[in-house]
Amino acid sequence: MRILGIDPGLATMGWGVIESGGDRHKLIQYGCLTTVAKQPMPQRLRTIFVGVNQLIDMFKPDDVAFEELFFTKNVTTGMAVSAARGAALVAVAQRTEEIYEYTPMQIKKAVTGQGKADKHQVQMMVKVLLRMDDIARPDDAADALAVAITHAHSINAKHLFKIT
Amino acid sequence: MRILGIDPGLATMGWGVIESGGDRHKLIQYGCLTTVAKQPMPQRLRTIFVGVNQLIDMFKPDDVAFEELFFTKNVTTGMAVSAARGAALVAVAQRTEEIYEYTPMQIKKAVTGQGKADKHQVQMMVKVLLRMDDIARPDDAADALAVAITHAHSINAKHLFKIT
Repeated sequence: MRILGIDPGLATMGWGVIESGGDRHKLIQYGCLTTVAKQPMPQRLRTIFVGVNQLIDMFKPDDVAFEELFFTKNVTTGMAVSAARGAALVAVAQRTEEIYEYTPMQIKKAVTGQGKADKHQVQMMVKVLLRMDDIARPDDAADALAVAITHAHSINAKHLFKIT
Repeated sequence: MRILGIDPGLATMGWGVIESGGDRHKLIQYGCLTTVAKQPMPQRLRTIFVGVNQLIDMFKPDDVAFEELFFTKNVTTGMAVSAARGAALVAVAQRTEEIYEYTPMQIKKAVTGQGKADKHQVQMMVKVLLRMDDIARPDDAADALAVAITHAHSINAKHLFKIT
């Protein structure tokens, strides 16, 4: 099955597509949607909304999974990232009846076996699991691939976390 | 000018449309978009996205203003409401280059003259300012009208708060 993982963000939204057949996964493609701070907010939200729509058109994923937003103490940033996440969610919602979301800890655990793994360990395991030559760059894209892998493992283990 | 005020929420999203000519405002219409908890999240987000699009089609507002989301301690609710706000924002973003947002304190101050006014005082002033027979129900719709009035006053005072 084909999985699109998304690491939501306003300036940089990481995405990664894998084809998963149980324990083995194949990298299809990864990248980032970026918006620049000098653009007005509506334009940035449109860029994300249109971008996520294009990803779905292009890769036709069976499932889409998000990394859960981490609420920061900086409320302004939190609101901006929430809006970006909402724009991505509604794009996905147009095409599917279910959206999945995993916490950073669930992702670390699914990818490395340890809930307290550091960022580098996660990125290394993503590289190994997808048989990549190098670590995916930027970090947001690597994180998005980690979300996709987490969802693949969750399907096997039936540990699916739907957004409710 | 015509203003659409929105009080974002997932179960109930209040909306209110006024026509404002400086200090005097005319009520056009108000109501709520509602979604039910038993629906899957993607369906609820679509309902909001489509609903806000329909409001814009129907009333063709010059400006759209939101009540700023208040981050609650309940993170799960916060995430759900953030997603709903994002769905509404992206619907508005499709049609306009600017979106405005006011805090509860700015709204209370603009409508009643006091930043610490209670909910009932705000609702009473909305009723008076829009020459309504009764207080708008439900609360979310009254709040949305208060946002619209706040934006009208802000235009006069040039105290506009764009979402950035």
